[in-house]
Amino acid sequence: MNPVLSISRRTRSTPFTRRVTEAGVKGYTVYNRMLLPTVFEGFEEDYHHLKKHVQVWDVACERQVEIKGPDAFKLVQMLTPRNLAKMGEDQCYYIPVVDEKGGMLNDPVAVKHSYDRWWISIADSDLLYWIKGLALGRGLNVDIFEPDVSPLAIQGPKSDDLMARLFGEDIRDLRFFRHRKIDFNGTSFTVARSGYSVQGGFEIYVDGSEHGEPLWDALFEAGEDLNVRAGCPNLIERIEGGLLSYGNDMTIENTPYEAGLGKFCKGDAAKGCIGADVLQKELENGPKRQIRGIAISGSATPPCRNPWPIMSGDEKAGQVTSAAWSPDLNTNVAIGMIDKAHWKIGNKLTVQTPDGTRDCEVRKMPFI
Amino acid sequence: MNPVLSISRRTRSTPFTRRVTEAGVKGYTVYNRMLLPTVFEGFEEDYHHLKKHVQVWDVACERQVEIKGPDAFKLVQMLTPRNLAKMGEDQCYYIPVVDEKGGMLNDPVAVKHSYDRWWISIADSDLLYWIKGLALGRGLNVDIFEPDVSPLAIQGPKSDDLMARLFGEDIRDLRFFRHRKIDFNGTSFTVARSGYSVQGGFEIYVDGSEHGEPLWDALFEAGEDLNVRAGCPNLIERIEGGLLSYGNDMTIENTPYEAGLGKFCKGDAAKGCIGADVLQKELENGPKRQIRGIAISGSATPPCRNPWPIMSGDEKAGQVTSAAWSPDLNTNVAIGMIDKAHWKIGNKLTVQTPDGTRDCEVRKMPFI
Repeated sequence: MNPVLSISRRTRSTPFTRRVTEAGVKGYTVYNRMLLPTVFEGFEEDYHHLKKHVQVWDVACERQVEIKGPDAFKLVQMLTPRNLAKMGEDQCYYIPVVDEKGGMLNDPVAVKHSYDRWWISIADSDLLYWIKGLALGRGLNVDIFEPDVSPLAIQGPKSDDLMARLFGEDIRDLRFFRHRKIDFNGTSFTVARSGYSVQGGFEIYVDGSEHGEPLWDALFEAGEDLNVRAGCPNLIERIEGGLLSYGNDMTIENTPYEAGLGKFCKGDAAKGCIGADVLQKELENGPKRQIRGIAISGSATPPCRNPWPIMSGDEKAGQVTSAAWSPDLNTNVAIGMIDKAHWKIGNKLTVQTPDGTRDCEVRKMPFI
Repeated sequence: MNPVLSISRRTRSTPFTRRVTEAGVKGYTVYNRMLLPTVFEGFEEDYHHLKKHVQVWDVACERQVEIKGPDAFKLVQMLTPRNLAKMGEDQCYYIPVVDEKGGMLNDPVAVKHSYDRWWISIADSDLLYWIKGLALGRGLNVDIFEPDVSPLAIQGPKSDDLMARLFGEDIRDLRFFRHRKIDFNGTSFTVARSGYSVQGGFEIYVDGSEHGEPLWDALFEAGEDLNVRAGCPNLIERIEGGLLSYGNDMTIENTPYEAGLGKFCKGDAAKGCIGADVLQKELENGPKRQIRGIAISGSATPPCRNPWPIMSGDEKAGQVTSAAWSPDLNTNVAIGMIDKAHWKIGNKLTVQTPDGTRDCEVRKMPFI
């Protein structure tokens, strides 16, 4: 029923694509003009496995924008309302990036290597173009480019065990959103404790495409008895965990406050970034709508391909942008944006899905 | 064999997606984070039909970047080496857009509405971000946004007949890359004689998503006896016609000269645009490699998902980036970039395809 994906050079393959194919990938999406697997055995099978064992994910589509040079810090701080002043050289920060109207352009992770060298690990939009245009327009002294760096994620409760076997017991001490170097095959990679699941794990920033398959193979060899499998960001698990998807749950039409990211928009840094005036005004007045968890009644909904209207009687109250059946919670879990008058936790509303109107309830996120 | 495409809000549906689905679309690609059909009956069936009849194409993925305001002309001229000084308010120009290193960021069509209002009809990259970043950095007085405009292409030899039935005989007089207004259902759309095939036709810039299905339906009703069908850019026909695909045949790694677009990089305009120094140097020295047509021997090749090395003996001579079997030419036609030492028309080389090494020959483009 789903059309196939026509793959070309433009929908870029990754250093891991051959292994992903061998592992029996059944579905893809295109993310940053690159292949991102969406399903292997099945959404529910992948979900149960992720929560119990360990998976290796091809997330090469999390492309890096490298910013290098004397003005690098100044430029990165210009991009985001989050205060980067105290960030260490072993830290990663989740940063909303906004335009001059306060609209979100991306929600990347900034990886600080040093004051004058950063990676911006991007969600699905060409942030490279925004950063390059801005730097050129302002005449900043920086070099900006996409390096040959492809993240590979290790996710699931047995992630520490698998990583320790390959890289030594010390890796267990790596703290959340901190990074360090690991050695592999005569080279070294940055690794962070991070990833797009709430099951715990790591992201290895594989520097050099030629190392992709050897690293993949080493992980599978070391993890055979841990029941390691090829996986991918799982729709059900990420909604349960309240992990937002840029382009799905928020777009350039939304401010960080609407996306529930207000805590990253406070203080002096926020007053100097692009869009500061608009953000300051929204801080004072509060957003008109905001991201919420939503539980949808009934059996499994179809996939959410377009926003589904949320209604309060005959009045539009918001929209659902991501939805999936949660086996563990025994309900449909969803993410959406709800107008201020209706966003209170526990509110009962309805949602217009492609197969009919259903009851729904505003919930706290994460669900789990 | 091909994995299915997982569709979400992030891989945006278009105002025509429902009709495209009803018409039996079999394959999609994602282009500008939007669904672009790639095949209906089959690549060859679609190809023969396109060359004989008339097709309606959902090319909503050709998103518009609207630039509006007193500095609009200045900004657009800054983006491209092509001279826009004499461009009329009824003209479209194909413009290479380059960065400060002369690397191509996109190859859009600029649609001039007036001196202070332009649409940039983009190929596959977020040119919105580049233009916004640049304008903000330079402090230009312009508003830049993506309007709710979705191109619908009418392509094939019977395009004039179909368009004349709906919009009157005058439409036949519209010249290549000129645009005008047409009335439909109480509103009006910009229409241009243009499109991503060499069979002739039009692109209607549907302004307002709500008009998508009514226009689609009107075209199919009016064209029933013309054998009108749903179609899409056809891989075989576009290679035969020498139409380049940004992201496939050239990327940010290539200059316009390498892409064979040197004729758009001359004169005074080229001296003022971003990347001017690099382009001037390349004009003087000539590019080191350049786009060529390539005929590949043997039966139909597999699809080109990654560049295929072109060899001269043991020496790398270039790469193929698009390839397809041409029923009309009875050979595989391809597009690639070939190093200066080997790019002469008629040169015999070899190409490493996924199913083995084949003989190939450098050819003029377009093939037909």
